[in-house]
Amino acid sequence: MNKIYVVGIGPGAYEQMTIQAVKVLESCDVIVGYTVYVDLVKEHFADKEFLTTPMKQEVKRCELAFEEAKKGQIVAMICSGDAGVYGMAGLIYEVGEAYPEVEVEIIPGITAALSGASVLGAPLIHDFAVISLSDLLTPWEKIEARVRSAAEADFSICLYNPSSKKRADYLMKACDYMLEYKSPETICGIVRNIGREGEESEVLTLQQLRDTTVDMFTTVFIGNSQTKVVAGKIVTPRGYTVE
Amino acid sequence: MNKIYVVGIGPGAYEQMTIQAVKVLESCDVIVGYTVYVDLVKEHFADKEFLTTPMKQEVKRCELAFEEAKKGQIVAMICSGDAGVYGMAGLIYEVGEAYPEVEVEIIPGITAALSGASVLGAPLIHDFAVISLSDLLTPWEKIEARVRSAAEADFSICLYNPSSKKRADYLMKACDYMLEYKSPETICGIVRNIGREGEESEVLTLQQLRDTTVDMFTTVFIGNSQTKVVAGKIVTPRGYTVE
Repeated sequence: MNKIYVVGIGPGAYEQMTIQAVKVLESCDVIVGYTVYVDLVKEHFADKEFLTTPMKQEVKRCELAFEEAKKGQIVAMICSGDAGVYGMAGLIYEVGEAYPEVEVEIIPGITAALSGASVLGAPLIHDFAVISLSDLLTPWEKIEARVRSAAEADFSICLYNPSSKKRADYLMKACDYMLEYKSPETICGIVRNIGREGEESEVLTLQQLRDTTVDMFTTVFIGNSQTKVVAGKIVTPRGYTVE
Repeated sequence: MNKIYVVGIGPGAYEQMTIQAVKVLESCDVIVGYTVYVDLVKEHFADKEFLTTPMKQEVKRCELAFEEAKKGQIVAMICSGDAGVYGMAGLIYEVGEAYPEVEVEIIPGITAALSGASVLGAPLIHDFAVISLSDLLTPWEKIEARVRSAAEADFSICLYNPSSKKRADYLMKACDYMLEYKSPETICGIVRNIGREGEESEVLTLQQLRDTTVDMFTTVFIGNSQTKVVAGKIVTPRGYTVE
Protein backbone atom coordinates (compact mmCIF):
# COMPACT_ATOMS: atom_id res chain seq x y z
CA MET A 1 0.00 0.00 0.00
CA ASN A 2 1.25 3.48 -0.88
CA LYS A 3 -0.42 5.83 1.52
CA ILE A 4 -0.03 9.25 3.08
CA TYR A 5 -2.19 10.42 5.94
CA VAL A 6 -2.26 14.18 6.50
CA VAL A 7 -2.90 14.46 10.21
CA GLY A 8 -4.04 17.48 12.20
CA ILE A 9 -2.51 17.06 15.66
CA GLY A 10 -4.50 19.85 17.32
CA PRO A 11 -3.00 22.72 19.32
CA GLY A 12 -0.12 20.76 20.81
CA ALA A 13 -1.26 18.82 23.86
CA TYR A 14 -1.33 15.07 23.24
CA GLU A 15 -4.81 14.84 24.77
CA GLN A 16 -6.26 17.23 22.22
CA MET A 17 -5.48 14.81 19.38
CA THR A 18 -8.36 12.65 18.17
CA ILE A 19 -8.26 8.90 18.76
CA GLN A 20 -8.11 8.50 14.99
CA ALA A 21 -5.01 10.72 14.76
CA VAL A 22 -3.27 8.77 17.52
CA LYS A 23 -4.09 5.43 15.83
CA VAL A 24 -2.73 6.69 12.49
CA LEU A 25 0.50 7.89 14.09
CA GLU A 26 0.83 4.57 15.95
CA SER A 27 0.31 2.54 12.78
CA CYS A 28 2.49 4.51 10.36
CA ASP A 29 6.17 3.95 9.58
CA VAL A 30 7.34 7.51 9.00
CA ILE A 31 6.21 10.84 10.48
CA VAL A 32 6.99 13.89 8.34
CA GLY A 33 6.56 17.47 9.47
CA TYR A 34 7.84 20.90 10.33
CA THR A 35 10.50 20.53 13.03
CA VAL A 36 8.47 22.25 15.78
CA TYR A 37 5.41 19.98 15.30
CA VAL A 38 7.50 16.82 15.12
CA ASP A 39 9.03 17.77 18.48
CA LEU A 40 5.51 18.04 19.94
CA VAL A 41 4.64 14.41 19.16
CA LYS A 42 8.04 12.69 19.18
CA GLU A 43 7.95 11.39 22.75
CA HIS A 44 4.61 9.66 22.21
CA PHE A 45 5.64 7.81 19.05
CA ALA A 46 9.32 7.20 19.76
CA ASP A 47 9.70 4.11 17.56
CA LYS A 48 8.87 5.93 14.31
CA GLU A 49 11.19 7.35 11.71
CA PHE A 50 10.98 11.16 11.72
CA LEU A 51 11.69 13.42 8.75
CA THR A 52 11.57 17.18 9.12
CA THR A 53 11.96 20.22 6.91
CA PRO A 54 12.11 23.83 8.09
CA MET A 55 9.54 26.57 7.35
CA LYS A 56 9.09 27.66 3.72
CA GLN A 57 10.12 24.14 2.58
CA GLU A 58 6.54 22.94 2.32
CA VAL A 59 6.73 21.62 -1.25
CA LYS A 60 9.91 19.74 -0.41
CA ARG A 61 8.22 18.32 2.68
CA CYS A 62 5.37 16.99 0.55
CA GLU A 63 7.79 15.48 -1.98
CA LEU A 64 9.68 13.81 0.86
CA ALA A 65 6.42 12.28 2.08
CA PHE A 66 5.50 10.99 -1.38
CA GLU A 67 8.97 9.54 -1.98
CA GLU A 68 8.67 7.58 1.28
CA ALA A 69 5.14 6.42 0.42
CA LYS A 70 6.33 5.35 -3.03
CA LYS A 71 8.84 3.03 -1.33
CA GLY A 72 5.92 1.36 0.45
CA GLN A 73 6.21 3.16 3.77
CA ILE A 74 3.01 4.27 5.49
CA VAL A 75 3.54 8.00 5.93
CA ALA A 76 1.90 10.47 8.30
CA MET A 77 2.40 14.12 7.43
CA ILE A 78 1.56 16.13 10.56
CA CYS A 79 0.23 19.68 10.83
CA SER A 80 -0.54 21.67 13.94
CA GLY A 81 -4.24 22.33 14.45
CA ASP A 82 -6.27 21.02 11.53
CA ALA A 83 -4.64 19.74 8.34
CA GLY A 84 -7.28 21.56 6.28
CA VAL A 85 -7.09 25.05 7.83
CA TYR A 86 -3.88 26.83 6.70
CA GLY A 87 -2.40 23.31 6.76
CA MET A 88 -0.79 20.89 4.32
CA ALA A 89 -3.93 19.09 3.07
CA GLY A 90 -4.18 21.22 -0.06
CA LEU A 91 -0.53 21.19 -1.10
CA ILE A 92 -0.32 17.42 -0.63
CA TYR A 93 -3.02 16.93 -3.27
CA GLU A 94 -1.26 19.34 -5.63
CA VAL A 95 2.14 17.69 -5.24
CA GLY A 96 0.38 14.30 -5.37
CA GLU A 97 -0.57 14.79 -9.01
CA ALA A 98 2.94 13.48 -9.81
CA TYR A 99 2.38 10.42 -7.60
CA PRO A 100 -0.92 8.87 -8.75
CA GLU A 101 -0.04 5.52 -7.12
CA VAL A 102 -0.11 7.07 -3.62
CA GLU A 103 -3.45 7.30 -1.80
CA VAL A 104 -4.05 10.36 0.40
CA GLU A 105 -6.35 10.57 3.43
CA ILE A 106 -6.97 13.65 5.58
CA ILE A 107 -7.39 13.23 9.36
CA PRO A 108 -8.95 16.40 10.81
CA GLY A 109 -7.80 18.01 14.05
CA ILE A 110 -8.72 20.81 16.45
CA THR A 111 -7.76 24.11 14.78
CA ALA A 112 -6.79 27.16 16.87
CA ALA A 113 -10.16 28.82 16.24
CA LEU A 114 -11.84 26.02 18.19
CA SER A 115 -9.21 25.42 20.88
CA GLY A 116 -8.68 29.14 21.45
CA ALA A 117 -12.43 29.72 21.64
CA SER A 118 -12.77 27.02 24.31
CA VAL A 119 -10.21 28.83 26.47
CA LEU A 120 -11.99 32.19 26.15
CA GLY A 121 -15.54 30.85 26.57
CA ALA A 122 -17.78 30.74 23.50
CA PRO A 123 -16.86 33.59 21.12
CA LEU A 124 -17.60 31.67 17.88
CA ILE A 125 -20.98 30.14 18.74
CA HIS A 126 -22.67 31.89 15.82
CA ASP A 127 -21.53 32.73 12.25
CA PHE A 128 -17.82 33.51 12.06
CA ALA A 129 -14.99 34.24 9.66
CA VAL A 130 -11.42 32.95 9.87
CA ILE A 131 -8.78 35.23 8.32
CA SER A 132 -5.00 35.01 8.27
CA LEU A 133 -3.15 38.34 8.45
CA SER A 134 -0.07 36.84 6.78
CA ASP A 135 0.56 38.49 3.42
CA LEU A 136 3.33 36.08 2.51
CA LEU A 137 1.13 34.40 -0.13
CA THR A 138 -1.91 36.70 -0.18
CA PRO A 139 -1.97 40.34 -1.30
CA TRP A 140 -2.72 42.70 1.61
CA GLU A 141 -5.59 44.28 -0.39
CA LYS A 142 -7.38 40.91 -0.36
CA ILE A 143 -6.84 40.54 3.40
CA GLU A 144 -8.08 44.09 3.97
CA ALA A 145 -11.21 43.45 1.88
CA ARG A 146 -11.98 40.31 3.86
CA VAL A 147 -11.49 41.97 7.25
CA ARG A 148 -13.76 44.85 6.21
CA SER A 149 -16.47 42.58 4.77
CA ALA A 150 -16.49 40.32 7.80
CA ALA A 151 -16.73 43.33 10.13
CA GLU A 152 -19.45 45.02 8.10
CA ALA A 153 -21.59 41.85 8.05
CA ASP A 154 -21.20 41.50 11.84
CA PHE A 155 -19.38 38.18 11.81
CA SER A 156 -17.41 37.08 14.83
CA ILE A 157 -13.85 36.97 13.51
CA CYS A 158 -10.87 34.78 14.32
CA LEU A 159 -7.47 36.04 13.14
CA TYR A 160 -4.58 33.65 12.50
CA ASN A 161 -0.97 34.85 12.11
CA PRO A 162 -1.80 38.25 13.62
CA SER A 163 1.80 39.37 13.82
CA SER A 164 5.42 38.72 12.98
CA LYS A 165 8.63 40.72 13.16
CA LYS A 166 8.10 42.11 9.67
CA ARG A 167 4.37 42.70 10.23
CA ALA A 168 4.33 44.29 13.68
CA ASP A 169 1.53 46.75 12.81
CA TYR A 170 -0.78 44.39 10.88
CA LEU A 171 -3.11 43.71 13.80
CA MET A 172 -3.42 47.46 14.43
CA LYS A 173 -4.30 48.00 10.77
CA ALA A 174 -6.87 45.19 10.85
CA CYS A 175 -8.42 46.67 14.01
CA ASP A 176 -8.65 50.07 12.32
CA TYR A 177 -10.62 48.51 9.44
CA MET A 178 -12.91 46.73 11.89
CA LEU A 179 -13.43 49.90 13.93
CA GLU A 180 -15.08 51.46 10.86
CA TYR A 181 -17.96 48.99 11.31
CA LYS A 182 -17.71 47.57 14.83
CA SER A 183 -18.01 49.43 18.12
CA PRO A 184 -14.75 50.15 19.97
CA GLU A 185 -16.42 48.35 22.90
CA THR A 186 -16.76 45.10 20.90
CA ILE A 187 -15.61 42.20 23.09
CA CYS A 188 -12.35 40.60 21.93
CA GLY A 189 -9.98 37.97 23.25
CA ILE A 190 -6.45 36.77 22.66
CA VAL A 191 -4.97 33.36 23.47
CA ARG A 192 -1.27 32.60 23.41
CA ASN A 193 0.32 29.13 23.28
CA ILE A 194 -3.03 27.36 23.13
CA GLY A 195 -2.86 23.91 24.69
CA ARG A 196 0.87 24.25 25.32
CA GLU A 197 3.09 25.27 28.21
CA GLY A 198 2.65 28.94 28.98
CA GLU A 199 -0.96 29.17 27.74
CA GLU A 200 -2.37 32.59 28.56
CA SER A 201 -5.48 34.49 27.56
CA GLU A 202 -7.00 37.92 27.96
CA VAL A 203 -10.40 39.49 27.36
CA LEU A 204 -10.36 43.07 26.08
CA THR A 205 -12.24 45.55 23.91
CA LEU A 206 -11.59 46.12 20.21
CA GLN A 207 -10.13 49.53 21.06
CA GLN A 208 -7.74 47.92 23.57
CA LEU A 209 -6.89 45.15 21.10
CA ARG A 210 -5.86 47.81 18.57
CA ASP A 211 -3.19 49.02 20.96
CA THR A 212 -2.01 45.58 22.07
CA THR A 213 1.11 43.87 20.75
CA VAL A 214 0.78 40.14 20.13
CA ASP A 215 3.24 37.57 18.81
CA MET A 216 2.97 34.87 16.17
CA PHE A 217 1.90 32.25 18.74
CA THR A 218 -1.28 34.20 19.46
CA THR A 219 -4.77 33.69 18.03
CA VAL A 220 -7.11 36.69 18.11
CA PHE A 221 -10.91 36.69 18.48
CA ILE A 222 -13.26 39.60 17.76
CA GLY A 223 -16.89 39.25 18.82
CA ASN A 224 -20.00 40.26 16.91
CA SER A 225 -22.37 43.05 18.01
CA GLN A 226 -24.12 40.68 20.47
CA THR A 227 -21.00 39.28 22.11
CA LYS A 228 -20.76 39.89 25.86
CA VAL A 229 -18.74 38.92 28.91
CA VAL A 230 -20.37 36.45 31.32
CA ALA A 231 -18.42 35.59 34.46
CA GLY A 232 -15.15 36.58 32.80
CA LYS A 233 -15.80 34.48 29.69
CA ILE A 234 -16.63 35.68 26.17
CA VAL A 235 -20.11 34.59 25.10
CA THR A 236 -21.64 35.15 21.68
CA PRO A 237 -25.33 34.30 21.90
CA ARG A 238 -26.56 31.56 19.60
CA GLY A 239 -29.13 33.79 17.99
CA TYR A 240 -30.62 37.24 18.14
CA THR A 241 -33.73 36.39 20.09
CA VAL A 242 -33.57 36.18 23.85
CA GLU A 243 -34.59 32.63 24.67
CA MET B 1 -16.50 19.70 43.23
CA ASN B 2 -19.36 21.20 41.24
CA LYS B 3 -18.36 20.92 37.63
CA ILE B 4 -19.84 20.82 34.13
CA TYR B 5 -17.77 19.94 31.11
CA VAL B 6 -19.26 20.99 27.77
CA VAL B 7 -17.85 18.40 25.40
CA GLY B 8 -17.74 18.48 21.60
CA ILE B 9 -17.93 14.84 20.51
CA GLY B 10 -17.07 15.48 16.85
CA PRO B 11 -19.12 14.32 13.88
CA GLY B 12 -20.31 11.08 15.42
CA ALA B 13 -17.67 8.38 15.03
CA TYR B 14 -16.08 7.47 18.37
CA GLU B 15 -12.60 7.70 16.81
CA GLN B 16 -13.10 11.34 15.89
CA MET B 17 -13.42 12.33 19.54
CA THR B 18 -10.31 13.76 21.19
CA ILE B 19 -8.56 11.79 23.91
CA GLN B 20 -9.49 14.60 26.29
CA ALA B 21 -13.20 14.24 25.43
CA VAL B 22 -13.08 10.48 25.99
CA LYS B 23 -11.33 10.93 29.35
CA VAL B 24 -13.91 13.47 30.50
CA LEU B 25 -16.80 11.21 29.52
CA GLU B 26 -15.11 8.27 31.28
CA SER B 27 -14.56 10.28 34.46
CA CYS B 28 -17.95 12.00 34.74
CA ASP B 29 -21.04 10.76 36.57
CA VAL B 30 -23.79 12.07 34.31
CA ILE B 31 -23.94 12.67 30.56
CA VAL B 32 -26.53 15.22 29.45
CA GLY B 33 -27.50 15.90 25.85
CA TYR B 34 -29.90 15.97 22.98
CA THR B 35 -31.32 12.46 22.53
CA VAL B 36 -29.64 11.82 19.15
CA TYR B 37 -26.13 12.70 20.43
CA VAL B 38 -26.54 10.68 23.61
CA ASP B 39 -27.39 7.66 21.44
CA LEU B 40 -24.12 8.18 19.53
CA VAL B 41 -21.95 7.79 22.64
CA LYS B 42 -24.07 5.58 24.90
CA GLU B 43 -22.49 2.24 24.00
CA HIS B 44 -18.99 3.50 24.84
CA PHE B 45 -19.85 4.87 28.28
CA ALA B 46 -22.53 2.40 29.34
CA ASP B 47 -22.04 2.81 33.10
CA LYS B 48 -22.99 6.49 33.15
CA GLU B 49 -26.30 8.07 34.00
CA PHE B 50 -27.84 9.65 30.90
CA LEU B 51 -30.23 12.58 30.85
CA THR B 52 -31.74 13.80 27.59
CA THR B 53 -34.01 16.57 26.43
CA PRO B 54 -35.45 16.96 22.91
CA MET B 55 -34.67 19.77 20.44
CA LYS B 56 -35.73 23.32 21.39
CA GLN B 57 -35.33 22.41 25.09
CA GLU B 58 -31.80 23.77 25.25
CA VAL B 59 -32.30 26.04 28.27
CA LYS B 60 -33.96 23.21 30.16
CA ARG B 61 -31.07 20.92 29.21
CA CYS B 62 -28.60 23.41 30.70
CA GLU B 63 -30.64 23.77 33.88
CA LEU B 64 -30.77 19.99 34.19
CA ALA B 65 -26.97 19.89 33.93
CA PHE B 66 -26.52 22.59 36.58
CA GLU B 67 -28.97 20.93 38.97
CA GLU B 68 -26.97 17.70 38.73
CA ALA B 69 -23.67 19.53 39.20
CA LYS B 70 -25.11 21.35 42.21
CA LYS B 71 -25.76 17.97 43.82
CA GLY B 72 -22.06 17.19 43.47
CA GLN B 73 -22.24 15.09 40.32
CA ILE B 74 -19.55 15.59 37.67
CA VAL B 75 -21.57 16.43 34.57
CA ALA B 76 -20.66 16.22 30.88
CA MET B 77 -22.98 18.11 28.55
CA ILE B 78 -22.33 16.75 25.05
CA CYS B 79 -22.73 18.52 21.70
CA SER B 80 -22.15 17.12 18.23
CA GLY B 81 -19.16 18.63 16.44
CA ASP B 82 -17.60 21.39 18.54
CA ALA B 83 -19.25 22.73 21.70
CA GLY B 84 -18.35 26.28 20.65
CA VAL B 85 -19.69 26.30 17.06
CA TYR B 86 -23.51 26.43 17.08
CA GLY B 87 -23.18 24.36 20.25
CA MET B 88 -24.10 24.66 23.92
CA ALA B 89 -20.93 26.38 25.20
CA GLY B 90 -22.50 29.85 25.11
CA LEU B 91 -25.87 29.03 26.65
CA ILE B 92 -24.24 27.09 29.48
CA TYR B 93 -22.40 30.25 30.59
CA GLU B 94 -25.61 32.28 30.36
CA VAL B 95 -27.66 29.79 32.38
CA GLY B 96 -24.66 29.38 34.70
CA GLU B 97 -25.03 32.93 36.01
CA ALA B 98 -27.64 31.48 38.38
CA TYR B 99 -25.21 28.77 39.54
CA PRO B 100 -21.99 30.60 40.53
CA GLU B 101 -20.80 27.59 42.58
CA VAL B 102 -20.52 25.41 39.45
CA GLU B 103 -17.29 25.52 37.43
CA VAL B 104 -17.59 25.22 33.63
CA GLU B 105 -14.94 23.89 31.24
CA ILE B 106 -15.25 23.63 27.46
CA ILE B 107 -13.70 20.62 25.68
CA PRO B 108 -13.42 21.39 21.94
CA GLY B 109 -14.27 18.88 19.20
CA ILE B 110 -14.13 18.48 15.44
CA THR B 111 -16.87 20.65 13.94
CA ALA B 112 -18.54 19.72 10.62
CA ALA B 113 -16.57 22.40 8.74
CA LEU B 114 -13.37 20.48 9.52
CA SER B 115 -14.64 16.90 9.24
CA GLY B 116 -16.61 17.65 6.08
CA ALA B 117 -13.63 19.43 4.52
CA SER B 118 -11.43 16.39 5.19
CA VAL B 119 -13.87 14.19 3.25
CA LEU B 120 -13.95 16.55 0.26
CA GLY B 121 -10.20 17.29 0.19
CA ALA B 122 -9.05 20.74 1.31
CA PRO B 123 -11.74 23.34 0.54
CA LEU B 124 -11.08 25.54 3.62
CA ILE B 125 -7.29 25.79 3.50
CA HIS B 126 -7.38 29.56 3.22
CA ASP B 127 -9.66 32.24 4.75
CA PHE B 128 -13.23 31.03 5.19
CA ALA B 129 -16.60 31.96 6.63
CA VAL B 130 -19.01 29.69 8.48
CA ILE B 131 -22.70 30.62 8.17
CA SER B 132 -25.85 28.87 9.37
CA LEU B 133 -28.88 29.18 7.07
CA SER B 134 -31.25 28.56 9.97
CA ASP B 135 -33.42 31.61 10.61
CA LEU B 136 -34.94 30.16 13.75
CA LEU B 137 -32.99 32.62 15.93
CA THR B 138 -31.44 34.93 13.32
CA PRO B 139 -33.33 37.27 10.97
CA TRP B 140 -32.99 36.18 7.33
CA GLU B 141 -31.78 39.70 6.38
CA LYS B 142 -28.72 39.16 8.60
CA ILE B 143 -28.02 35.76 7.03
CA GLU B 144 -28.44 37.25 3.55
CA ALA B 145 -26.01 40.08 4.35
CA ARG B 146 -23.43 37.61 5.63
CA VAL B 147 -23.70 35.32 2.62
CA ARG B 148 -23.35 38.29 0.27
CA SER B 149 -20.38 39.78 2.14
CA ALA B 150 -18.55 36.48 2.33
CA ALA B 151 -19.10 35.88 -1.38
CA GLU B 152 -18.07 39.40 -2.36
CA ALA B 153 -14.83 39.19 -0.36
CA ASP B 154 -14.01 35.82 -2.00
CA PHE B 155 -14.07 33.73 1.17
CA SER B 156 -14.47 29.99 0.96
CA ILE B 157 -17.81 29.41 2.67
CA CYS B 158 -19.15 26.57 4.78
CA LEU B 159 -22.93 26.46 5.29
CA TYR B 160 -24.49 24.74 8.31
CA ASN B 161 -28.20 23.91 8.51
CA PRO B 162 -28.64 24.38 4.74
CA SER B 163 -32.16 23.03 4.68
CA SER B 164 -35.17 21.81 6.60
CA LYS B 165 -38.77 21.02 5.73
CA LYS B 166 -39.85 24.60 6.33
CA ARG B 167 -36.78 26.06 4.59
CA ALA B 168 -36.57 23.92 1.45
CA ASP B 169 -35.53 26.84 -0.80
CA TYR B 170 -32.99 28.52 1.53
CA LEU B 171 -29.93 26.95 -0.09
CA MET B 172 -31.19 28.03 -3.52
CA LYS B 173 -31.66 31.59 -2.23
CA ALA B 174 -28.16 31.58 -0.69
CA CYS B 175 -26.68 30.33 -3.98
CA ASP B 176 -28.45 33.10 -5.86
CA TYR B 177 -26.82 35.71 -3.59
CA MET B 178 -23.42 34.09 -4.06
CA LEU B 179 -23.89 33.91 -7.84
CA GLU B 180 -23.99 37.71 -7.88
CA TYR B 181 -20.30 37.69 -6.89
CA LYS B 182 -18.95 34.20 -7.55
CA SER B 183 -18.68 32.41 -10.91
CA PRO B 184 -21.31 29.71 -11.60
CA GLU B 185 -18.31 27.43 -12.17
CA THR B 186 -17.07 27.92 -8.58
CA ILE B 187 -16.18 24.52 -7.11
CA CYS B 188 -18.52 23.37 -4.34
CA GLY B 189 -19.02 20.22 -2.32
CA ILE B 190 -21.64 18.64 -0.11
CA VAL B 191 -21.15 16.02 2.58
CA ARG B 192 -23.99 14.10 4.20
CA ASN B 193 -23.84 12.12 7.47
CA ILE B 194 -20.21 13.07 8.09
CA GLY B 195 -18.38 10.38 10.07
CA ARG B 196 -21.56 8.33 10.45
CA GLU B 197 -23.15 5.41 8.67
CA GLY B 198 -24.23 6.42 5.18
CA GLU B 199 -21.59 9.14 4.73
CA GLU B 200 -21.71 10.44 1.16
CA SER B 201 -20.17 13.38 -0.64
CA GLU B 202 -20.32 15.08 -4.01
CA VAL B 203 -18.28 17.70 -5.84
CA LEU B 204 -20.27 20.09 -8.01
CA THR B 205 -20.35 23.65 -9.36
CA LEU B 206 -22.13 26.55 -7.67
CA GLN B 207 -24.70 26.52 -10.48
CA GLN B 208 -25.35 22.81 -9.90
CA LEU B 209 -25.47 23.35 -6.13
CA ARG B 210 -28.19 25.95 -6.65
CA ASP B 211 -30.41 23.27 -8.21
CA THR B 212 -29.57 20.52 -5.70
CA THR B 213 -31.80 19.52 -2.81
CA VAL B 214 -30.00 18.72 0.42
CA ASP B 215 -31.29 17.68 3.84
CA MET B 216 -30.53 18.86 7.37
CA PHE B 217 -27.76 16.27 7.80
CA THR B 218 -25.74 17.88 5.02
CA THR B 219 -22.89 20.41 5.28
CA VAL B 220 -22.23 22.55 2.21
CA PHE B 221 -18.90 23.98 1.02
CA ILE B 222 -18.39 26.75 -1.56
CA GLY B 223 -14.87 27.39 -2.80
CA ASN B 224 -13.16 30.73 -3.39
CA SER B 225 -12.11 31.99 -6.85
CA GLN B 226 -8.92 29.89 -6.72
CA THR B 227 -10.51 26.61 -5.64
CA LYS B 228 -10.01 23.73 -8.07
CA VAL B 229 -10.50 19.99 -8.40
CA VAL B 230 -7.37 17.83 -8.12
CA ALA B 231 -7.82 14.08 -8.61
CA GLY B 232 -11.50 14.33 -7.66
CA LYS B 233 -10.80 16.32 -4.49
CA ILE B 234 -11.56 19.98 -3.78
CA VAL B 235 -8.37 21.99 -3.24
CA THR B 236 -8.22 25.64 -2.27
CA PRO B 237 -4.62 26.81 -2.69
CA ARG B 238 -2.92 28.16 0.42
CA GLY B 239 -2.18 31.48 -1.20
CA TYR B 240 -2.44 33.38 -4.42
CA THR B 241 1.13 32.90 -5.61
CA VAL B 242 1.96 29.73 -7.50
CA GLU B 243 4.63 28.03 -5.42
